Amino acid sequence: MCHHCVIESVKSGMLSRRSFFTGSVAAGAAALAASALPQPALAQAATKAEDLTHELFETFPTYFGDQQLFIDKKFNFKEHSFNLNEWRINEHTGTHIDAPLHFSADGKSVAELPVEDLVAPLVVIDIRAKAAENADAQLTPDDIKAWIAANGELPQGAVVALLSGWGAHVETEKFRNVGADGKTMHFPGFHIETAELLLEGSTKAIAVDTLSLDHGPSPDFAVHNKWLPTGRYGIEGVANLDKLPAKGATIVVGAPKIRGATGGPARIFALV
Amino acid sequence: MCHHCVIESVKSGMLSRRSFFTGSVAAGAAALAASALPQPALAQAATKAEDLTHELFETFPTYFGDQQLFIDKKFNFKEHSFNLNEWRINEHTGTHIDAPLHFSADGKSVAELPVEDLVAPLVVIDIRAKAAENADAQLTPDDIKAWIAANGELPQGAVVALLSGWGAHVETEKFRNVGADGKTMHFPGFHIETAELLLEGSTKAIAVDTLSLDHGPSPDFAVHNKWLPTGRYGIEGVANLDKLPAKGATIVVGAPKIRGATGGPARIFALV
Repeated sequence: MCHHCVIESVKSGMLSRRSFFTGSVAAGAAALAASALPQPALAQAATKAEDLTHELFETFPTYFGDQQLFIDKKFNFKEHSFNLNEWRINEHTGTHIDAPLHFSADGKSVAELPVEDLVAPLVVIDIRAKAAENADAQLTPDDIKAWIAANGELPQGAVVALLSGWGAHVETEKFRNVGADGKTMHFPGFHIETAELLLEGSTKAIAVDTLSLDHGPSPDFAVHNKWLPTGRYGIEGVANLDKLPAKGATIVVGAPKIRGATGGPARIFALV
Repeated sequence: MCHHCVIESVKSGMLSRRSFFTGSVAAGAAALAASALPQPALAQAATKAEDLTHELFETFPTYFGDQQLFIDKKFNFKEHSFNLNEWRINEHTGTHIDAPLHFSADGKSVAELPVEDLVAPLVVIDIRAKAAENADAQLTPDDIKAWIAANGELPQGAVVALLSGWGAHVETEKFRNVGADGKTMHFPGFHIETAELLLEGSTKAIAVDTLSLDHGPSPDFAVHNKWLPTGRYGIEGVANLDKLPAKGATIVVGAPKIRGATGGPARIFALV
């Protein structure tokens, strides 16, 4: 597919209703259920909820390398007949959201993201093969082309997720994967041209199973700087993308609703 | 309906598939979609996501009365080209979860709640009329009976939510509603006999639009102490229950997945 064709395909955005429902467990009936409705939150009745969230613990690996979660036990059952903790936590820890405000002077905070942007068709783009050969692999426009060739146009208002296989490394040094220079990290991310391409269409968010929307060696947060100021959001550290189909799942993004927050740990599900 | 009959009704748990779908937007087709599936995460294709979460801000009213959220700006766009904050936050702040561990020595933490318990049929029990007359009103077994008489049996594995109308008071003194003695709070909650009744069945969680599962003047957290140690969870400070039908919505509880946490601020949606 030519580059222009891909852009047109991304721009057109919405799969036809017919093709969107193809392959669903109970396609015919679900299509009937939804077809009378203008903008279904879910295109079909779901059969299962998959957890896309890593358990967060104090030593969970972080982009900057320092500990970002501290749990302080304030009450304990033995003494007080109930347990209660206080957390000190950096907004960008664990499976979490990057709100537009993270990389803009006055963009939307995570609390201001519209609910309609938090329940969306999920596109999973699998680059595990090339990421296994090159930790600095990026999701390129060619990967979008290949997905479209196999699955049809991107659904309207999708969350487009990068499956690099890095979710499996979350409890090891491989998640940050610092190189021989002792500082440069090596993990996959979105290519800047892919961000530019997706900005032509209706994609609401991009998601990665790594520590950053930009790949590890990025010197300039190019994708962050391109994507977030447009009012779209990002998700980092997504889990279990390997358990999902390339298309057909609905992501439900439990973004924390904290006033003025630039992001925050989220509980994320896929309804399949 | 006699008390025994109500218990039997609660025990039987599952509405017949036929009655469960009655009244849904596209009942016939959705029933078809789900009927081939053993345990659908969603019984029907949803048309809308409703946000059941209050925006959380530093002075959000708290049970103990003291501020429980503090936001510390660590990086700012002007100086650092990105914004990032750190939060210090009590687990039981805003729209939040009470995990079994909150009121037990070694119950499940919020991270250990099974995903299957976080996506569930939502039952909304409206006691606004009596709560408007008496701020100490409780959701009693009679209210459960009345709901069943109007709507049929409780769905299997439901989250049962108390709609008292208190959500409208969240930015005012009325949310805590401290009485003339300067300390006793007055807001609605679950009656202990209702907790006992629901424990006979498959209800996964109880939810309130107030500060506590127990009503304001409770001296002993009776409902907390009865409900949570059984492995079930609670939700406090739920928003927008007045926008939902009494039955037919699916709640998606974005509980924070923090290891060892006794609860925590959650992002909660209802798919309707």
